[in-house]
Amino acid sequence: MSRAGTSRERLYLFDTTLRDGAQTNGVDFTLADKQAIARLLDDLGIDYVEGGYPGANPLDTEFFAVKPKLGHARFTAFGMTRRAGRSVSNDPGVAALLDAKADAICFVAKASAYQVRVALETTNEENLASIRDSVTAAKAAGREVMLDCEHFFDGYKENAEFALACARTAYEAGARWVVLCDTNGGTMPHEIEAIVGEVVRHVPGDHLGIHAHNDTEQAVANSLAAVRAGARQIQGTLNGLGERCGNANLCSLIPTLKLKTEFSDRFEIAVSDQQLGGLMKVSRTLDDMLNRAPNRHAPYVGESAFVTKTGIHASAVLKDPQTYEHVLPESVGNHRKVLVSDQAGRSNVIAALERGGIPFTKSDPKLTRLVEELKEREAIGYAYESANASFELLARRTLGSVPEYFRVEQFDVNVEQRYNAVGERVTVALAVVKVDVAGERLISAAEGNGPVNALDVALRKDLGKYQGFIDGLKLIDYRVRILNGGTEAVTRVLIESEDETGERWTTVGVSPNIIDASFQALMDSVFYKLVKSGAPG
Amino acid sequence: MSRAGTSRERLYLFDTTLRDGAQTNGVDFTLADKQAIARLLDDLGIDYVEGGYPGANPLDTEFFAVKPKLGHARFTAFGMTRRAGRSVSNDPGVAALLDAKADAICFVAKASAYQVRVALETTNEENLASIRDSVTAAKAAGREVMLDCEHFFDGYKENAEFALACARTAYEAGARWVVLCDTNGGTMPHEIEAIVGEVVRHVPGDHLGIHAHNDTEQAVANSLAAVRAGARQIQGTLNGLGERCGNANLCSLIPTLKLKTEFSDRFEIAVSDQQLGGLMKVSRTLDDMLNRAPNRHAPYVGESAFVTKTGIHASAVLKDPQTYEHVLPESVGNHRKVLVSDQAGRSNVIAALERGGIPFTKSDPKLTRLVEELKEREAIGYAYESANASFELLARRTLGSVPEYFRVEQFDVNVEQRYNAVGERVTVALAVVKVDVAGERLISAAEGNGPVNALDVALRKDLGKYQGFIDGLKLIDYRVRILNGGTEAVTRVLIESEDETGERWTTVGVSPNIIDASFQALMDSVFYKLVKSGAPG
Repeated sequence: MSRAGTSRERLYLFDTTLRDGAQTNGVDFTLADKQAIARLLDDLGIDYVEGGYPGANPLDTEFFAVKPKLGHARFTAFGMTRRAGRSVSNDPGVAALLDAKADAICFVAKASAYQVRVALETTNEENLASIRDSVTAAKAAGREVMLDCEHFFDGYKENAEFALACARTAYEAGARWVVLCDTNGGTMPHEIEAIVGEVVRHVPGDHLGIHAHNDTEQAVANSLAAVRAGARQIQGTLNGLGERCGNANLCSLIPTLKLKTEFSDRFEIAVSDQQLGGLMKVSRTLDDMLNRAPNRHAPYVGESAFVTKTGIHASAVLKDPQTYEHVLPESVGNHRKVLVSDQAGRSNVIAALERGGIPFTKSDPKLTRLVEELKEREAIGYAYESANASFELLARRTLGSVPEYFRVEQFDVNVEQRYNAVGERVTVALAVVKVDVAGERLISAAEGNGPVNALDVALRKDLGKYQGFIDGLKLIDYRVRILNGGTEAVTRVLIESEDETGERWTTVGVSPNIIDASFQALMDSVFYKLVKSGAPG
Repeated sequence: MSRAGTSRERLYLFDTTLRDGAQTNGVDFTLADKQAIARLLDDLGIDYVEGGYPGANPLDTEFFAVKPKLGHARFTAFGMTRRAGRSVSNDPGVAALLDAKADAICFVAKASAYQVRVALETTNEENLASIRDSVTAAKAAGREVMLDCEHFFDGYKENAEFALACARTAYEAGARWVVLCDTNGGTMPHEIEAIVGEVVRHVPGDHLGIHAHNDTEQAVANSLAAVRAGARQIQGTLNGLGERCGNANLCSLIPTLKLKTEFSDRFEIAVSDQQLGGLMKVSRTLDDMLNRAPNRHAPYVGESAFVTKTGIHASAVLKDPQTYEHVLPESVGNHRKVLVSDQAGRSNVIAALERGGIPFTKSDPKLTRLVEELKEREAIGYAYESANASFELLARRTLGSVPEYFRVEQFDVNVEQRYNAVGERVTVALAVVKVDVAGERLISAAEGNGPVNALDVALRKDLGKYQGFIDGLKLIDYRVRILNGGTEAVTRVLIESEDETGERWTTVGVSPNIIDASFQALMDSVFYKLVKSGAPG
């Protein structure tokens, strides 16, 4: 994939998941989300991580109060150039940007005469002065500076001279990058290619970036067209998050840049082959964090991206995968699936057992039973791909045995809401669990913030001789998905746990009843910990 | 949009939702589905409807036993050219195709020497003879004939002469269309444009089609690149259905061809402006039929395609929609939305009030209080942008008043799990709700699949004089998000409801206790319905 010895041009990746991606309808990042995603992007080999818009909302201001520890990526703050009629030193927005703990500042300014007139209600000259003053001030403050030229392509089509003046002004004032934005997302790839081809005559291509939106489903093509015409920075988001139809999808762009010789022969990006191999996991981690169902059909990283269903294709793929695959699934951390034969399901399961270090023999009829059992359970909603610990327990139980360390004979959870003596609404959750541990009957009760918390606390309050093994167990995350819609539908619960060694694992439960589904996942988590700790049966 | 008087070239649309789309992982059409979708496509103005692969499976054979009544569209059967070493008259696959009640036959044959050798294990000469014989036979039987050149682009890159020979052989044997397929979906738009540019020197462009897959997220761009290079038929599917990452998405292509002057000035398609206005409905109908959640971020037809969330963008959109919209949402049957969120200010709230028809005066200090209240509640997890009905209730309560139709004095939900007499695990959920309706105290109890379902049924079992207003109320969707991770974190519940008129609304609840959060959202839904119905206070 990499061609050592030849000279390739460097392409820079700029991620705006935490800024433009935060505009996605239904996405609300917490501070912890933002911190975790910044690390995820840094680990992936992204060059610039745009964290948000300090000064615009309390969350982003807090996020920029302390610079996150990133290895490779430059942490970038976004904000507007100074307002019309104000000086830079008298503009609170610019002040917030300069105060932000960031390596780079990405200003945004309009590059369309129409927008300047209608949306800003100011003059072209004042707009250019605002760009010049803001870039100069940020550069003087020691920051790497870029300018997002908002509405660049629409602006260029209407008044090329003014759009170019905006770009050139930023470049001449010292901006490292001038980013051409297709803000409304309506520009066609051939137009992008032609216009960027003109712009490079005014601003050098290795100072030009592209920021595309997906409103005609061509954000990826538009980004690549700009690169072909000379731009050397691509802005995008993980999973194509973003307002309306989203931004250019870095999870599609990165593999294309790395794996397609049309690009990899000419360009190099900071993402290594090994980092590319973690791309599917990065994509899935973001979805999990946002509790969004992953797009099964996403290019490269989707669950179905390398799935073959047709008979004729399937047999060809088994003869030689290259017949129906444009790249190797493993290169992005994905894997091939053929949905025709039992043979295919079986090889998937064998690979998972090998990854989990679970002993088996290929000729064992129990292996066939495990494959069947997995199929049946996945058909009713279990998601073993996401729940490694539940998969491992099921596999160990089917192929060998797992001790019945203890048995829950009964549980009872109650949630009551009423008004107390001073008229406040009070909600109380109480759980009682009856457990049989080696013939000894233990009853525990606990209150909690909610029914699942109460149940969790009660279950783990007293497990007799096993208590010592689970003391370090903590629940890290709890996710719920309704599989068919409506409160009568089936509920899938995923629970992520962690122990004192820092190991994390995920378990799954499925039931029409959310409490039952949660309890299954809790039980699997405790059993997994006991197996892992080598607790005596 | 249409330019009468100028001469535009005709572009043909070929839909393969019922054939290639049926290969989508998780899609299983019934006969009734296929009949309904064929009519839907015909009503949309599609030129060719590919119904399936008669002879390959009983469903498709049955579908082609009687020709569906279509107005404009030509009903097309798909199948393989005769097998190597057989005559056309002795090939059951070709016989099934000729028997099918179809206007047109679309054959598929490999156009790659590598594929012919590895997958078919035959010779290039035999492959060309198979194309020639099959096209000739179908034409002699009075059908319009096309050939899908499978793997055309990969084949061209490896052995251009052979790929071109396949295309030319079909054309010379009388095929109306020779369709160039990017079967593995890995070709880049600029490669497509260059290769189609070569092919038109051998087969006239008005006999060439393009069949693109989305494996690099560029199926739409690839289709348009082929048109720019001379191809005059586009194959695709509704909502981009299809194996792996899907086929070229007609729901994105059709609006671009109709609304972007780069294409509409040069080309004309059979889809009228009025048919285009029904596109969003067509897209949604297919999703409903397949019970798939619509892609909110789909270009043109997605629920979020014309949604604005940012403060600065929102105020500009309110000044002039053209500032942030690349086409008019109504042209595809969609509409503009400006969301209420913590990033948006007062002007956004005002726009939301106007859309909701909620009376207010701009100088009212209560309006300021509402803006503050929204910010505070969003800070603790409420998501009013997603929950229009909860927003409306909060706004009406803050700006004016909403009757306290009834008051829930207490509820109690219990979930118990135990083993029954025959050793089966049994889970029972029971809820009791005490309600005060105008001084009358009503107590209802109900069982449910889970605690929220039990609570919902109990709450709506008896609301006294209001019962008549809520009889048509149904819960459509229930979504849960844990905001900080762990079972002790805050839970956000979104509930979508529908009434007998088909109107849908969404409500939100937030609490550390999932039952409390769910109950808030249930209560808001019932209150919204009572307000909407004009129930007396």
